[in-house]
Amino acid sequence: MSQHKNITILKIGGSVITDKSSDIGKVQIEEIERICQEISGYSNDLIIVHGAGSYGHPLAKKYDLDNIPDPKGAIITHSSVKSLNEIMVSSLQKAGIDAVSVHPLNNTVSNDGRISDMFLSNIHIMLENGLVPVIHGDVVMDITNTFSVISGDQIVSYLANKLKASRVGIGSIEDGVMDNKGKTLTKITSSNFKEIEKFLGVSKNTDVTGGMLGKVNELLQLCEITGATSYIFNAKKPNNISYFLSGHNIGTAIKK
Amino acid sequence: MSQHKNITILKIGGSVITDKSSDIGKVQIEEIERICQEISGYSNDLIIVHGAGSYGHPLAKKYDLDNIPDPKGAIITHSSVKSLNEIMVSSLQKAGIDAVSVHPLNNTVSNDGRISDMFLSNIHIMLENGLVPVIHGDVVMDITNTFSVISGDQIVSYLANKLKASRVGIGSIEDGVMDNKGKTLTKITSSNFKEIEKFLGVSKNTDVTGGMLGKVNELLQLCEITGATSYIFNAKKPNNISYFLSGHNIGTAIKK
Repeated sequence: MSQHKNITILKIGGSVITDKSSDIGKVQIEEIERICQEISGYSNDLIIVHGAGSYGHPLAKKYDLDNIPDPKGAIITHSSVKSLNEIMVSSLQKAGIDAVSVHPLNNTVSNDGRISDMFLSNIHIMLENGLVPVIHGDVVMDITNTFSVISGDQIVSYLANKLKASRVGIGSIEDGVMDNKGKTLTKITSSNFKEIEKFLGVSKNTDVTGGMLGKVNELLQLCEITGATSYIFNAKKPNNISYFLSGHNIGTAIKK
Repeated sequence: MSQHKNITILKIGGSVITDKSSDIGKVQIEEIERICQEISGYSNDLIIVHGAGSYGHPLAKKYDLDNIPDPKGAIITHSSVKSLNEIMVSSLQKAGIDAVSVHPLNNTVSNDGRISDMFLSNIHIMLENGLVPVIHGDVVMDITNTFSVISGDQIVSYLANKLKASRVGIGSIEDGVMDNKGKTLTKITSSNFKEIEKFLGVSKNTDVTGGMLGKVNELLQLCEITGATSYIFNAKKPNNISYFLSGHNIGTAIKK
C-alpha cells in the first residue's frame, strides 16, 4: 500500500462545534457550516478528527465510563457522539466534500485507555481516492477495562504517528497555548515544556480527556516519535482553518 | 485473546426487514420488532448480520457501484444502509439487547469484491462482554476497484470462518432452499449441490449480491473450510428465529 507523505490531520475541538457548557448534546450548527466552507477548498489528503463536546463528556461522566464497564452507558454515549459525527459529516458533504464517517468503536481497540490497535487499511484507500475520513472522540472496547473513552486528541496523535502526517492542526477555542500572563506562546518544545506545564495544570479547559495539558502532551509525544510539527490555534476565528490548511504557521507550534 | 467456541451468527435477510420491491428504502418495522423480541431471550454469544434490502440494492444498481468507483454514489448508498442498521440496532436495544452497530465501511477492506481483511479485535471484546455486534451488507473500500458491495451473506461466511462460529442461521423469506418442484430441501452437501445448482440458477430471488445461489455457495465454502453447519430458514414465520436460536434444526441444512 502506498505511503501518503502529505497527509494533513485537522482536529476540530468539541468546544468549537458544540456548546460545551450544556449537559445535553447541543450543536453549534453555524460554526460547523462555516468550518465546512473553510475546509471545502482543500484538495490534498485530509483526515478530520472532532471532539465529542457536550455530546460526549456529560454522558461519559454520568456513566463514569472510565471506571464502570457499563454496556448501557457505553452504548448511550457512543450513540450520542455518533449523532454529532453524522451532523458533521452531512455538513461536510453539503459543502461538497466526500466525507465518510469512521467510528472508533468500529475500528479501534485500546489497552487501559490507550489506543493499542486501529484498522487503517480502509483509511489508506479512502485517502488514495480523495475521500475524507471523519473520526471522533468515542467509547471504544478496551482489552483491560472493557470500555474506555478515547479523546479526539489521542486519535490525532495515533493517526499522525501511524500515517506519518506532515501537518497537524488542533482547532480549539483559544488562540493557542497561553503562558501565565495570558499571552499566546509561539512554540512549545520538550525543552520549555517543564516550565509551561506548571500553569497548564491549572487551565480552565479541563475535561474528561485531559484538556489543554492532555493536548500538548499528546502532541509532544508525537513530535518525539515522528518529528511532526503541530499547531494549536483558534478555530472559532473565521478563516483560521483555511489559513492553516493553506500551509501557514498559526497559533502555538508544538515542535522539536 | 480467548476463543469463542459457542458463537451463533444470525443473518436476517434484507427481504425480511424491508420491502424489497420498493425502489427507495422502506422498512418493515413490525417484522423488525417481532424479530427483536424473538432474539431478546437469547443469552449466548451472538452476532447479527442483516441485509440491505431496499436500502441498498436499488442504490447500488443506480450508481452501478460494482463497475463505477463513484464516491458520491458509494457515500449515498452507505448512508442509506447505515440508516437501516440504526433502525435495527435501536429496535434491538428497545428489546433489551446490548446491540452495537458495526459498519463494514469502517472495519473491512475487500479485494476485487471479496473481503480480504476485517478488524475483529473489538468484536472479540464485545462478545466477551455480552454485547451483540450488528453488522450489515455495505459498500466497503476495495483494494482493486476502490469500492465494492459486500453482501450480508459474504460477511456471515467470513465471520463464521474467522470466529469459528458453532451455528449459522440465514433467516430468509422462504422455508429454505427449494427443489424444482417447490419442495424444501432438508440438506445440501457438496455431493448433491451440482444437481441443485441447476434450478437455483433460475431462482426469482436474484439480487445484486447473488440471491439464493450466492447464499448456498457462501455457506458451502464455509462448510468446506470449518465444517460448520448452516441453516437457511423462513424468518418471516413467527417463532422460527427463536426456534433456531434455541438450538433446533430448521429449514435447509448446508452441511458436509
